[in-house]
Amino acid sequence: MASTAKILVTNDDGIHSPGLRLLYEAVKELGRVYVLAPETPKSASGLGITLHKPLRIGKVKIWGDTMVYITNGTPSDVIYIAIEEFSPRFDVVVSGVNIGDNTSIQVILSSGTIGAAAQAALLGIPGIAFSADIDEASQLEEDRETWENMKRVIRAITSWVLEHGMPEGVDLISVNFPRKVRKDTKVKIAPAARIKFLQKVSVLYDPRGRKYYWLYGTLVEPEPGSDVYVVHVEKAIAITPLSLNVNVKEGEWAAVVENIKPMIQAAESALRAQTSATVSTA
Amino acid sequence: MASTAKILVTNDDGIHSPGLRLLYEAVKELGRVYVLAPETPKSASGLGITLHKPLRIGKVKIWGDTMVYITNGTPSDVIYIAIEEFSPRFDVVVSGVNIGDNTSIQVILSSGTIGAAAQAALLGIPGIAFSADIDEASQLEEDRETWENMKRVIRAITSWVLEHGMPEGVDLISVNFPRKVRKDTKVKIAPAARIKFLQKVSVLYDPRGRKYYWLYGTLVEPEPGSDVYVVHVEKAIAITPLSLNVNVKEGEWAAVVENIKPMIQAAESALRAQTSATVSTA
Repeated sequence: MASTAKILVTNDDGIHSPGLRLLYEAVKELGRVYVLAPETPKSASGLGITLHKPLRIGKVKIWGDTMVYITNGTPSDVIYIAIEEFSPRFDVVVSGVNIGDNTSIQVILSSGTIGAAAQAALLGIPGIAFSADIDEASQLEEDRETWENMKRVIRAITSWVLEHGMPEGVDLISVNFPRKVRKDTKVKIAPAARIKFLQKVSVLYDPRGRKYYWLYGTLVEPEPGSDVYVVHVEKAIAITPLSLNVNVKEGEWAAVVENIKPMIQAAESALRAQTSATVSTA
Repeated sequence: MASTAKILVTNDDGIHSPGLRLLYEAVKELGRVYVLAPETPKSASGLGITLHKPLRIGKVKIWGDTMVYITNGTPSDVIYIAIEEFSPRFDVVVSGVNIGDNTSIQVILSSGTIGAAAQAALLGIPGIAFSADIDEASQLEEDRETWENMKRVIRAITSWVLEHGMPEGVDLISVNFPRKVRKDTKVKIAPAARIKFLQKVSVLYDPRGRKYYWLYGTLVEPEPGSDVYVVHVEKAIAITPLSLNVNVKEGEWAAVVENIKPMIQAAESALRAQTSATVSTA
């Protein structure tokens, strides 16, 4: 066991989320732990990086006497700043615990919690994202049994990854907890569903009679076996191994190339067919 | 040919980007075209959706006499609002032309331009994202030859997708233009590289002597054949078919399950091993 493992703890809900404290408590004995998180919530920030403004870090002592670092950057920025400021090499980046589960590809692709773990993965650092199917932070603090059980699971998974690394073919791991975690709650490996919500739009009118829109999602019937099903229907813990490779699958590449050839020919023809006159008068 | 095709045009640079106008001009004769774009730039917004505040849309007449709709939402919000406001069914969503290429998985996963096309794809609508390797919008306006040539290529590709739909196994298509597009510029199909930049952090000091950080990227040597190589080295147009399936590849799933089993057992053991006393005193 790497007793001197370097562990970065972050989230996208900001430093005042009890989920960050839970995560810190879960891993604090596994190595040298650094906590750097956004000062304010950065939900739905995905893998966004801040290139157009200066970033700062500050220190606060919270949770008794723990030194926590805060930044005005995104969860993805956190990874780069932590590497600069704390250590050129982390053994694992843990992100969360997010208030709200991050199940389904639709949600995964916009999640800042998963974004931080994904950004770490792009740099070759094992990344693990933790999220819980709860609506409000207070639910996490009030249910001490779930709190302690989540800590046990987080510690076991992080410890396992520190010892074994990411499995071959896996870039990062996303763990989603159900609302309540009990002694007999099951832990299941589950692929991500494609979508979780049907997004809807409410059309409303403000006091001055002007129209506005409010987006909300209605849950789609989840496919058995998927992460959404495991967390929401089976009320079990879903472990979802993810790959960042958004290229067409290797086995399908040749067929796709064949199918796309006529499109490429159409594009090239459109370019080649022009006369010099067309160009100069354009 | 679908002469009554419904086409949604959007971007993430905002309505004042010449890239949006270029895109509109390229597709305006292919069907009934709706333009709805963020009022201000929303770069690096990925697939973010706005759930916690009201969204508005407004109308402006620009580019001579074209009615363009604007919103305070993200590129992904645009898709849902457009479906509510204009049509329950679009035949294609085109996004861009982004000022700056969106090559490599690292960039793809945080791009708002690609996010809009990906959000459409999640709803089963063909999405095409267009981006150009230019630093500033003015470069696009000053090079009329490139401007007209991009239009030709965009029109040919969009027209092809309207007629044939997305190839099997492809969720969306990302097209990246090189700095200059000439009559003899090549069009190539190219998978996305994993990373394009090594992110670096500059540590600087403000006039009051306080430390701040500025993130920037240095280009990684691109792998031949990748989208980055095609656009930056070969100066050709790269067509990159993308899949949103971030699950572990099907062929590797069984092996990953086998590898992860001990992790799951470790997590379950941590839960089961506790005594009732542990829980109640937690």
